[in-house]
Amino acid sequence: MKTLKQYAEITENRLSELLPKMAEGEYRISGMPWLLSDSMRYSLLAGGKRLRPSMLLACVEMLGGNISDGLDFACAVEMIHTYSLIHDDLPGMDDDTMRRGRPTNHVVFGVGQAILAGDGLLNYAFETMLRSGLEHRDRAANYMAAMDEIARGSGVAGMIGGQVMDLHCEHHNAMDEAALSYIQRNKTACMFMYPLRAAGHICGADESRLDALERYGRCFGLLFQATDDLLDVVGDTEKMGKTLGKDAASGKLTCISLYGIEGTRKLVNELYEEAVEAISVFGENSAFFVELVKNMVERTH
Amino acid sequence: MKTLKQYAEITENRLSELLPKMAEGEYRISGMPWLLSDSMRYSLLAGGKRLRPSMLLACVEMLGGNISDGLDFACAVEMIHTYSLIHDDLPGMDDDTMRRGRPTNHVVFGVGQAILAGDGLLNYAFETMLRSGLEHRDRAANYMAAMDEIARGSGVAGMIGGQVMDLHCEHHNAMDEAALSYIQRNKTACMFMYPLRAAGHICGADESRLDALERYGRCFGLLFQATDDLLDVVGDTEKMGKTLGKDAASGKLTCISLYGIEGTRKLVNELYEEAVEAISVFGENSAFFVELVKNMVERTH
Repeated sequence: MKTLKQYAEITENRLSELLPKMAEGEYRISGMPWLLSDSMRYSLLAGGKRLRPSMLLACVEMLGGNISDGLDFACAVEMIHTYSLIHDDLPGMDDDTMRRGRPTNHVVFGVGQAILAGDGLLNYAFETMLRSGLEHRDRAANYMAAMDEIARGSGVAGMIGGQVMDLHCEHHNAMDEAALSYIQRNKTACMFMYPLRAAGHICGADESRLDALERYGRCFGLLFQATDDLLDVVGDTEKMGKTLGKDAASGKLTCISLYGIEGTRKLVNELYEEAVEAISVFGENSAFFVELVKNMVERTH
Repeated sequence: MKTLKQYAEITENRLSELLPKMAEGEYRISGMPWLLSDSMRYSLLAGGKRLRPSMLLACVEMLGGNISDGLDFACAVEMIHTYSLIHDDLPGMDDDTMRRGRPTNHVVFGVGQAILAGDGLLNYAFETMLRSGLEHRDRAANYMAAMDEIARGSGVAGMIGGQVMDLHCEHHNAMDEAALSYIQRNKTACMFMYPLRAAGHICGADESRLDALERYGRCFGLLFQATDDLLDVVGDTEKMGKTLGKDAASGKLTCISLYGIEGTRKLVNELYEEAVEAISVFGENSAFFVELVKNMVERTH
């Protein structure tokens, strides 16, 4: 097992390989045009903690697999996460002009090309997973099941569903507790839950282990959200997620407005305990994942 | 083998099943929200010839397979085609307010929800193919190869790449013959070529048959474009493709401006002959596909 930073570096290097820089004006009849490569690279290689792909890689190693078995799936997860940010930032959505200290994709490339850069990253995530699956043809059913998990996580009953509800509730000022639960699970937690399940399939994990991974992932995602909401009000300046923080600051419904500071602290502890319990079935190897939730909770103390 | 209309009806029915109407305001924690179902259905079930999915189904039957082996792949191809139209119509892209006699998706649902409806359809196409692949677990490698073809067709070196170049050239008034070739192949022909290859993989076709299908698909796609360009100038009012027609009318570079009317007629005949020759390796069963290009060419006489 490696550190979060090491998994992030491995992801970073592979992302650059998967999407190499092209010469200005270059396109060949059966290749992508330079402009699409530029616009996708601009957002994909803009830094970031690479949390989701690193967790997928750590999970593969925890289950006895090799990094190479899951690396392209990890990269696909980051492509999907990045596409969702590009589209989220568009006019008609959040209309943000800055992200991670740089102008957003549509500010640099124009709205039309930014839409296509997002579409391209989502499609390329599947192209990348499929190529990886075909390279592991002897375990085709496992890899197909793993892809199915990623597709569910990013899908209409997953991340996109959550975004639709988020936009709808914001627009109609119709946020309530049920809607917030839906959004937190689908928009945020799904892209932790399902990539961990994908790692499980890659390594041939049985149903009970897949369930344990999903439970940990769900708790992790909800913790990610709840601790971010807490940090917003207890004044930590180094935010875990810019968007979430911004939402809380703008007076939108958050864990805090629903449960209060003490109630949210209680929720955080419950989620922490459930996460640790869920992952404990993997014994010693689960230390990486225990650390991860521990660090997240400690930042709110 | 069935008629184009019969394949279209089969596709239509399955699309409705895959995306059922939801009650207003309905959402469950692990399902999609009604609003996403509504916005995706609005564009997906808006009519249309269902040409791409019908050709995939006909190809499966031509190769001795059953409709049910390829039906969800056919539906996925139509979802991808529809998502590309929703995004194409957005402000920042073509900014169209009407399609097929109805207001475009973003006019009805707003720009943000239309972006998400497109994202949803692209993702749901993969969800649908993956579920179908998992139902044919004994042929997992075949189904994975089939998905890989669809992903390439719609991908960064396929349809999206073509759209990026199209938008770029239009915006910078930089269209030349090489760019037009790229756009016609990638934006238009890829979504015929690769779905036919996918049908081939589903039925276990060998490399030489896959190549024949790809050749036919490429010729078909280019014919689709060239005959449309011709119909625009020879005055047929019933257009084969609204967008293509519109482009020609607005004075953009087309087959006509490059080759003239007579040159385009010559091109049409060459493509027709190559298409018929390519598909002839499938013997009697290829009659459906011969008819298809014949009808297309005859409309320009």
